[in-house]
Amino acid sequence: MTDTYSVDIRITPREGILDPQGETISRALGNLGYEGIRSVRAGRLVRIELEAESSDDAASAVGRMCEELIANPTIEDYVVRVREGVSG
Amino acid sequence: MTDTYSVDIRITPREGILDPQGETISRALGNLGYEGIRSVRAGRLVRIELEAESSDDAASAVGRMCEELIANPTIEDYVVRVREGVSG
Repeated sequence: MTDTYSVDIRITPREGILDPQGETISRALGNLGYEGIRSVRAGRLVRIELEAESSDDAASAVGRMCEELIANPTIEDYVVRVREGVSG
Repeated sequence: MTDTYSVDIRITPREGILDPQGETISRALGNLGYEGIRSVRAGRLVRIELEAESSDDAASAVGRMCEELIANPTIEDYVVRVREGVSG
């Protein structure tokens, strides 16, 4: 018997890793006249809905997906969070 | 007198808008043998640290940045959340 879970993955560049996308946004904001920007970091957000036997199983399956495909653990950190069971 | 605030922006494809990156991840996970995936949506996460007079001012400045540069409101939804004041 499985339920459907909605799982969020927040993927961010690791501390000390160059973040060209964040740098570009930061520079563009300065060019547009925004002041007081100290840093901009750009990451990714992936939301997966999947069938699993429990919330723990959903989190651990998504952790494996991150290691194998979704994140690049050499340069990215990721945080997995099960948001909720989804009905149906 | 300003403080430094850390603000998160979660940018997601709007309901009904095609999400080729999410589709690609979903298909690749299936090819790797993962089962029970119902949907994958891919978005972006931007974290900005900036000087502002108050948490409300920080949120409203970042809202303007989203409209002007960071998000594409035609195809993306975004949520701005001030995480915390950052010391220094």
